[in-house]
Amino acid sequence: MSRFWSPVVQTLTPYVPGEQPQMQRLVKLNTNESPYGPSPKALTAIQEQNNADLRLYPDPEGKALKQAIAKLHGLNPNQVFLGNGSDEVLAHVFAGLLKQARPVHFPDITYSFYPVYCKLLGIEYQTVPLGEHFEIQVSDYKVPNGGIIFPNPNAPTGRAVPHSEIESLLLRNTDSVVVIDEAYVDYGTESCIPLLRGDICPENLLVVHTLSKSRALAGLRVGFAVGHPALIEGLERVKNSFNSYPLGRLAQAGALAAIEDQAHLEESSRKVIHTRTKLVAELTALGFDTLPSTANFIFTRHPRHSGENLYQALRDRGIIVRHFKSPRIENFLRITIGTDEQSGELVTALKEILD
Amino acid sequence: MSRFWSPVVQTLTPYVPGEQPQMQRLVKLNTNESPYGPSPKALTAIQEQNNADLRLYPDPEGKALKQAIAKLHGLNPNQVFLGNGSDEVLAHVFAGLLKQARPVHFPDITYSFYPVYCKLLGIEYQTVPLGEHFEIQVSDYKVPNGGIIFPNPNAPTGRAVPHSEIESLLLRNTDSVVVIDEAYVDYGTESCIPLLRGDICPENLLVVHTLSKSRALAGLRVGFAVGHPALIEGLERVKNSFNSYPLGRLAQAGALAAIEDQAHLEESSRKVIHTRTKLVAELTALGFDTLPSTANFIFTRHPRHSGENLYQALRDRGIIVRHFKSPRIENFLRITIGTDEQSGELVTALKEILD
Repeated sequence: MSRFWSPVVQTLTPYVPGEQPQMQRLVKLNTNESPYGPSPKALTAIQEQNNADLRLYPDPEGKALKQAIAKLHGLNPNQVFLGNGSDEVLAHVFAGLLKQARPVHFPDITYSFYPVYCKLLGIEYQTVPLGEHFEIQVSDYKVPNGGIIFPNPNAPTGRAVPHSEIESLLLRNTDSVVVIDEAYVDYGTESCIPLLRGDICPENLLVVHTLSKSRALAGLRVGFAVGHPALIEGLERVKNSFNSYPLGRLAQAGALAAIEDQAHLEESSRKVIHTRTKLVAELTALGFDTLPSTANFIFTRHPRHSGENLYQALRDRGIIVRHFKSPRIENFLRITIGTDEQSGELVTALKEILD
Repeated sequence: MSRFWSPVVQTLTPYVPGEQPQMQRLVKLNTNESPYGPSPKALTAIQEQNNADLRLYPDPEGKALKQAIAKLHGLNPNQVFLGNGSDEVLAHVFAGLLKQARPVHFPDITYSFYPVYCKLLGIEYQTVPLGEHFEIQVSDYKVPNGGIIFPNPNAPTGRAVPHSEIESLLLRNTDSVVVIDEAYVDYGTESCIPLLRGDICPENLLVVHTLSKSRALAGLRVGFAVGHPALIEGLERVKNSFNSYPLGRLAQAGALAAIEDQAHLEESSRKVIHTRTKLVAELTALGFDTLPSTANFIFTRHPRHSGENLYQALRDRGIIVRHFKSPRIENFLRITIGTDEQSGELVTALKEILD
């Protein structure tokens, strides 16, 4: 604490990311990284940029990367906004679109960064309880609001909202922005991006993506948002009042090559989905109750063991998963889907713990 | 304009960085980049990190890089704050330290991002006119304020404030933070960092550095601030409420190697200073009036030619410099110090234009 802090700083409770332990030889299933590497084409593209030209500023607009994203998704480049990871994109979304007279609405159990942004930026928010089965009930959002945001699939539950329900929400909610955070969309959830194509693009739908999960580039820090050009323009104004050059030359080059290698994404995602299906079956056989997941993680609990104890017992065996000490979910573990081999080690360890 | 923007967005006038033209074969003297490449050790360090581990998040705290910076400057690692370029560091400084009941004070002619941050973040500011010779007069800042920030040397003038005057300001100004933005310090200005060492570290002095200038890594996006641990803690709270991972793995590795290669910085800076001395003499011979610079750029005007015309005539010859259409300085050009060869091309072009 210092008397030189701005008053708001005294009130902040910063977001705590999953730890990045320095221990060697651990099974790291706590931050939803891909167990497979990024596209080899991304590594090559970075290598080609790693030269004396690093003395020069990058393109502040990231035009080439925006074009590649637009092309992949059937959009125009002016529908694309880039950021230093989707966390930075989300920060600008809260500042530029969700700071309104009415509170922003999001689920009570969701990405725990949302209330942190609100606190920093002085935004009122209202949480909307998940249903009995930890599902987002879209009808609960059809009330006056200053904006709506939720991940689809939701984190840390892994449960997705059907596409038709988001369309129905958009038809009803025409006076505020609806932000769908699709960080985990590539593992079996239907994306909302097709709704943004052509003349039918709603004025108030924004979809946020990251390259940290299905494109396996968490270490590079690239995310983006797509939506109506007027929403994107608002985000650009905020970004250009904050940091002109959030994406360096290596990040832009690597991200562009990764975006162009859709085959690599599809192959990695297929493997993750396969491992997830197998893991859920094995956990069920051990008595676990797992929420239906279309993400690269599962949210699971055991009727006879506390989340805290399971978390600690796994950690003692060098397996790191995520545990949240929050109401309703304190007995769940969020487990990233790793390789088949890592999944096997996890199941072996759990059998040992449950014995 | 969109009715879905947060109200503040309608009021923003974003910062406009110097352009990054895509033309080939131009002499680019507009954004104060180093004419020499970064440390070869930085390129090697990046190459060694460019592998499948990019799938993993970086260290959110950047511990190794903080240690290297602390070691270089004789500080403790808890006195170091890292950011995605010094622009992001400055944004967090405004949010976390300079948003106070009283207005922040900075020069009327200075880094034009400062008022932009204030607008975005809802911070009151008061500009303090430079003296007759475009110098910062430290005595003008010895009034009640919510914080003081200026670059030393100042941009775009290149003029530095003597160290003794900053010490006298600190003795007098004990109730608000003093931020010295040392982006251009390595070309002949005395740094304030020694004031931060050991027990004498003032509670209210923060010094901001970038790796984009003297370390020739503008394309990598790394900056940092150093100061009292309590100031750093305030900045960390803001950063961790905004974006947990602003520096990717490649940025952390490259920056660390660059920080450790002080010899490379010194050699490059020596060459820039040599070229600057020569260029100023040649411009004086052509009738230019150049402010005394200890930066890697000069601020110069010609009594018989408008800044606008000179800027355009140089541009027509493939030489890009920076021109600001602001009161008092509209006849100046800000010219980055390039190689001796680029300097020669500039002088040749100016001779042609003035003829």
